Amino acid sequence: MNKEKVLVIKIGGNSIDNPKELVAFLETIATIKTPFILVHGGGKLATDLAEKLNIPQQLIDGRRITNAETIKIATMVYAGYINKNIVALLQKNNKNSIGLSGADANLIQTTKRVHPTIDYGFVGDLHTTSINTEFIENLLNFDLTPVVNAITHDGKGELLNTNADSIANALAVSLASKYEVSLLYCFEKNGVLYDPSNDDSVIHELNHQQFEELKQQGIISKGMLPKLDNCFHALQNGVQTIAILKATLILGFLNHTNHEYTRIIK
Amino acid sequence: MNKEKVLVIKIGGNSIDNPKELVAFLETIATIKTPFILVHGGGKLATDLAEKLNIPQQLIDGRRITNAETIKIATMVYAGYINKNIVALLQKNNKNSIGLSGADANLIQTTKRVHPTIDYGFVGDLHTTSINTEFIENLLNFDLTPVVNAITHDGKGELLNTNADSIANALAVSLASKYEVSLLYCFEKNGVLYDPSNDDSVIHELNHQQFEELKQQGIISKGMLPKLDNCFHALQNGVQTIAILKATLILGFLNHTNHEYTRIIK
Repeated sequence: MNKEKVLVIKIGGNSIDNPKELVAFLETIATIKTPFILVHGGGKLATDLAEKLNIPQQLIDGRRITNAETIKIATMVYAGYINKNIVALLQKNNKNSIGLSGADANLIQTTKRVHPTIDYGFVGDLHTTSINTEFIENLLNFDLTPVVNAITHDGKGELLNTNADSIANALAVSLASKYEVSLLYCFEKNGVLYDPSNDDSVIHELNHQQFEELKQQGIISKGMLPKLDNCFHALQNGVQTIAILKATLILGFLNHTNHEYTRIIK
Repeated sequence: MNKEKVLVIKIGGNSIDNPKELVAFLETIATIKTPFILVHGGGKLATDLAEKLNIPQQLIDGRRITNAETIKIATMVYAGYINKNIVALLQKNNKNSIGLSGADANLIQTTKRVHPTIDYGFVGDLHTTSINTEFIENLLNFDLTPVVNAITHDGKGELLNTNADSIANALAVSLASKYEVSLLYCFEKNGVLYDPSNDDSVIHELNHQQFEELKQQGIISKGMLPKLDNCFHALQNGVQTIAILKATLILGFLNHTNHEYTRIIK
């Protein structure tokens, strides 16, 4: 028997920062007939709010620290403002959706990061049993579209900030035994690029060996590295299709008319 | 056949403003065996945040206006910070709960208030078909405790601020045909008081005629008036038990050892 299809769609910060783009993206994905889960990051809104409130961004050894004030802002912006606006806009487009943090229905329980020398603050790391897969399945069975933000909890009363790419990965992997899962990282570029300044230089297919080579050559760097680590982890754990693509071209990807994207292969 | 029991518990702003009180209240209600829905208001946090961000509170004819900046703050504070902290604390106490705005799963659809002379801004009024009762029933069947905040939506993409007392009332009424519903307005005082400065002057039972008399005499006034209007509306629409009581005494009320509260009667 063929497994049912499910998409896990991660939308990046840049698309959230531009309200017109976000509205258009949500109108677009509301037309997708395959059940999907939307995972969203934060964008600049949280940074802007911290600035307005004069809460300094704390950095130790170049790594961002989520102190008590910062997790409060992240919770307000990600789980409140962005999440509820996305849900209201999907409802407008007749896509019945439900916004969820990791605390809701114990959807994502993480562990507060422990590091020998750096106190990262309220940051949660995913583990293999983090996802409440049964609850997600129930929502999908009720034709509800889960909209998941990056705030998780530790089960001990603390809310924790968690990487949204990693959440998308963990959700995709957790569903892979029951569903045929596609994991789609949507952002503002055409895919993984040979030359970050040239949107036409898409790497169309990328396997792990090529990834390691391009990493050593410095062609793939920075924020793309953890995203691709997540992709290869998903590939090794039963996720069927993994792609990095431009948010505005998602329908073309799904109906096979857009060929400009990066597919992660074995 | 006896109907199943459900409690609709409204927790007021003052209990939310004091973190220690809130933690204690959530520990307490986590022990309640009867299924319940928790509805929460906002407290001073939203006002404080607006002040810090230099967003002036707009008043027309003494009525608060929810402009675009204010609904943004209300969404961040009520649907984000407060709602997710309550859920995380209930999870800590092994009460599996789920935080919901009215947009989530189309739980509460309201109509943007239209007034001939005043533009109230992003304020939503409840109507008889506002509540998605079926969804609430599904959550209760899954042993999930809904934690509902005061942000609703209009189905056209707008989030709207709605009176939390009225939401508790609408939820109670919508469940009354299927369940034996108790509607409990919890706040910082012992109940409706003859003398607001004397917490021992509780009006133990209040029917509609007495309410009208006490209102005319000015003994019941201000914020208590819309709360009691909600109570009598609930009573007329099948809600079995309606009480106004001190948040810290809720267990005593439920096990009949606390007799200091106001019960609304026919």
